[in-house]
Amino acid sequence: MQPKASVRGLPLYKPGKSLEEVKRELGLEDVIKLASNENPFGCSPRVWKALEEIKGEFQYYPEGAAPELREKLAEHLEVDPRRLIFGNGSDEIVQMLARTYLEPGDESVMADFTFPRYDTVTRIEGGVPVVVPLREGVHDLEGMLAAITEKTRLVWICNPNNPTGTIVSQDALSDFLDRIPPHVLVVLDEAYYEYVTDSTYPDSISLLDYNPQIIILRTFSKIYGLAAFRVGYGIAHPDVIAELERVREPFNVNRLAQKAAAAAVEDEAFVLYCRNQNRMGIKQMTEKFDEWGLSYFPAHGNFILVDTGHPADEVFQHLLHRGVIVRSGVHLGFPEHIRVTVGKKEQNERFLEELHAFLQKRGK
Amino acid sequence: MQPKASVRGLPLYKPGKSLEEVKRELGLEDVIKLASNENPFGCSPRVWKALEEIKGEFQYYPEGAAPELREKLAEHLEVDPRRLIFGNGSDEIVQMLARTYLEPGDESVMADFTFPRYDTVTRIEGGVPVVVPLREGVHDLEGMLAAITEKTRLVWICNPNNPTGTIVSQDALSDFLDRIPPHVLVVLDEAYYEYVTDSTYPDSISLLDYNPQIIILRTFSKIYGLAAFRVGYGIAHPDVIAELERVREPFNVNRLAQKAAAAAVEDEAFVLYCRNQNRMGIKQMTEKFDEWGLSYFPAHGNFILVDTGHPADEVFQHLLHRGVIVRSGVHLGFPEHIRVTVGKKEQNERFLEELHAFLQKRGK
Repeated sequence: MQPKASVRGLPLYKPGKSLEEVKRELGLEDVIKLASNENPFGCSPRVWKALEEIKGEFQYYPEGAAPELREKLAEHLEVDPRRLIFGNGSDEIVQMLARTYLEPGDESVMADFTFPRYDTVTRIEGGVPVVVPLREGVHDLEGMLAAITEKTRLVWICNPNNPTGTIVSQDALSDFLDRIPPHVLVVLDEAYYEYVTDSTYPDSISLLDYNPQIIILRTFSKIYGLAAFRVGYGIAHPDVIAELERVREPFNVNRLAQKAAAAAVEDEAFVLYCRNQNRMGIKQMTEKFDEWGLSYFPAHGNFILVDTGHPADEVFQHLLHRGVIVRSGVHLGFPEHIRVTVGKKEQNERFLEELHAFLQKRGK
Repeated sequence: MQPKASVRGLPLYKPGKSLEEVKRELGLEDVIKLASNENPFGCSPRVWKALEEIKGEFQYYPEGAAPELREKLAEHLEVDPRRLIFGNGSDEIVQMLARTYLEPGDESVMADFTFPRYDTVTRIEGGVPVVVPLREGVHDLEGMLAAITEKTRLVWICNPNNPTGTIVSQDALSDFLDRIPPHVLVVLDEAYYEYVTDSTYPDSISLLDYNPQIIILRTFSKIYGLAAFRVGYGIAHPDVIAELERVREPFNVNRLAQKAAAAAVEDEAFVLYCRNQNRMGIKQMTEKFDEWGLSYFPAHGNFILVDTGHPADEVFQHLLHRGVIVRSGVHLGFPEHIRVTVGKKEQNERFLEELHAFLQKRGK
């Protein structure tokens, strides 16, 4: 009754602290969570209305192929509906990629500090994570190319990268893809896609037409504000989609999630509002960081990785006890950085005040 | 970019036809679905109230460990909360079991006609399904015991069995478990547990105390009427739970599902009502089958596998075009049976009328 070798001793994922947990553990009432890159503005009001429409349908399994959501999203993205696959969060598609392509001993190439699930799902399959250090917080595409061997099946590019927030450009990516050998699938994880305003950011869907060796991952958990529901998707050549469909659980995306996402995708005004507020929030925070002489990585998503100059867990604990939950960089590879989600203006202010209080007390 | 060997050519799961599909494809308005063993009475009214309480929380990820649901369910089942694991439907726990325990070449033992996911998840891991024929529709535990080898890791017992509806008894199961070698984990899939009224049906949780080599699977998709949400659970020794936790996706059970299930588990009156209605529905249907001379398997869940004496797809198509969706036995191993979910009284009547019309036209 031993688990398989690759699972023994595997580390457990440590999520950011939840609001409920902090309230329970510290007995605090007024807590703000800037830890998991969730949308501080909630979600589109159309979502609740859509749920009301299906409140008599809770006893029915979802439609596995998500036809309504597929149709609306295909139209929104202007892609062929057969190029889409849906997951219980894009997390699940990350898992499906490993389950589909990796045999024991196969390699998958990833940055040293990036979304930790790429590593975990690779290990569960008995695969070998091949780690290429970031360069100044940015994916080293040349280094990743050099790390590809006969045994490589997957290359993971998180863009913007979590936790640094940096991006690789259309030119760099396009050049990289031109040189990928045919036995490798490149995963472009664009969970924060809708937040990016930089003009050099790739139009990845256009790259798909020239290169069938890509799968793009996006999610409704970030700017759409639907993390509670778990719905993400992949965009790829229909042949890649067909392979992934073989390992997809038949009813993986729940009925409410499909309905909520189909409603959310039509509310473009909400997305634009959040995107603008996020830009202003980044400005609000980085102006203070500049004033205080703190360095940070260029933030293209809805979070900032900032160097506090102090042990990150101390900063984290200080903020936590004042009701502000952020993410300590210790488990993210940055022992003196914290990762803070861009919140509403007043939440950012509160975070900045508490951080400032800490810095004043401790120096800098 | 080839998928791994075990995934190539894997068959896709064929779910029962959905209401939406049938309405779309046949242009029918008044359709009843007795195909997927869903609860015809919906779910507890407490569920919608519980969702209303969290309508401001859709942007937040669920708590991965499902603390509120865990506590309420542990109390309801009178088990230690550390003995529970939650899945995106019990389907996902079926998948997690294969991912945790099977290496390529490992064997998993199952009945010939049972829930098809045991076979699929085994194959995806490169494992070998070892199939033991049912005996008169019942799991052949002696045969399954004899099929266990050095390479066996998992034994799947679906109880009541889907699609036959038959059960194995406490005595038979207990005797079987006493003789299982220590390298094997026995999966007792009890998706229909709450429907069973037969006094010989196992009290499987009590067996756990004597035998840590069991995991019991149950679900909120059946009698609780929450198939739309996707939430199932496993009950096992904490050591087994700890291993499964290593492969669990961090946010696998969505926030709404956790909330809905926590509300549903407290409404025992609803469950009892559905259980009683189901017994009456089985009586209503089997009395007619007896009258018409149709044989069927003893039905302990909320469905009946009945021998129509005609090619099942013909019966299925006849009923479908009259707005009654059932499951043809062709893909379930029973080419002349149909599997019909026990519905509300008037739904059962309509099904019986349409079936009777078919039989009169075609003879018998």
